Amino acid sequence: MSSSYSNYTNSPCAACKFLRRKCTSDCVFAPYFPPEEPKKFANVHRIFGASNVSKILQEVEPHQREDAVNSLAYEAEARLRDPVYGCVGAISVLQRQVLGLQSELEETNADIMRYASCLGGETTSVYGARRG
Amino acid sequence: MSSSYSNYTNSPCAACKFLRRKCTSDCVFAPYFPPEEPKKFANVHRIFGASNVSKILQEVEPHQREDAVNSLAYEAEARLRDPVYGCVGAISVLQRQVLGLQSELEETNADIMRYASCLGGETTSVYGARRG
Repeated sequence: MSSSYSNYTNSPCAACKFLRRKCTSDCVFAPYFPPEEPKKFANVHRIFGASNVSKILQEVEPHQREDAVNSLAYEAEARLRDPVYGCVGAISVLQRQVLGLQSELEETNADIMRYASCLGGETTSVYGARRG
Repeated sequence: MSSSYSNYTNSPCAACKFLRRKCTSDCVFAPYFPPEEPKKFANVHRIFGASNVSKILQEVEPHQREDAVNSLAYEAEARLRDPVYGCVGAISVLQRQVLGLQSELEETNADIMRYASCLGGETTSVYGARRG
C-alpha cells in the first residue's frame, strides 16, 4: 500500500465519513477530501451531490482531478453564499469591471492622442516607444 | 387555473418529461423549464441533480427563481463543456483580463504624466478636466 494512503487507512476521508461508509484504498474521493476538511465535501455534496462529483472525477484525467475538485468546491461555496447567482455573480461583477476598465483605457488613450497632437513630432517617439 | 399554466396542462414541462412524471399545476420546475427547452433541464439535472435544483428553487424567493435557474443552467453548461474548471475557468480568464487592463491603464497614465510634464502648465487643464 502506498504511503499516500497511510493517512486514511485509519481515518476515513471526509466523504466516506460524511456518507458513513467504509473508506477503501481505491476511494475516488480520499485524495481530494482529507478528513481534516469536512466542510469541503459537505459543500460539494450539498450542491452537486456525491454521485455527480464522483462521475465528474471519473470523467477527467487523474492529474486534473485536484483542480476539478477545487473548482467544484469554489462553485459550491459560492452557491451556498448566494443561492440565486452562485459564482455566476462573480462573473457578472468581473465582466462589468472589464468593461469599465476598457472604457477608462479608451478615454486615457484619447487623452494621450490629444497630448501627442499638442507636442507634435517630439511625442511620436515617446508614444511609439511602447506601442510600436 | 391561471393562463400561465395552460402551456403545460397538456404538455409536461421539460423536467417532468425528463423524469417521466406527471406535471402538476404546482410543479416547481414548470415555470422555468418549458417543454421546448429540454436541454436546459437535462444539463442542470446532470450536474446538480433534480433534487438539489428543487431545493435551491424552494430556498429562494419566487421572484428570484428565474435568475437562479438561469445561473444554474449557465454553470451546468460550463461544467459540461469544461469538466475540470467549469465556469471557474471563465472567472480566472476575467481576473487575468482585469489585471492586464489595470496594468495597461497604469502604464498609460504614466505616459500621460510624461506628456503633462513635457507640456507644462498648458496640459494641466487638459489633464485636470477629466480627473477632477
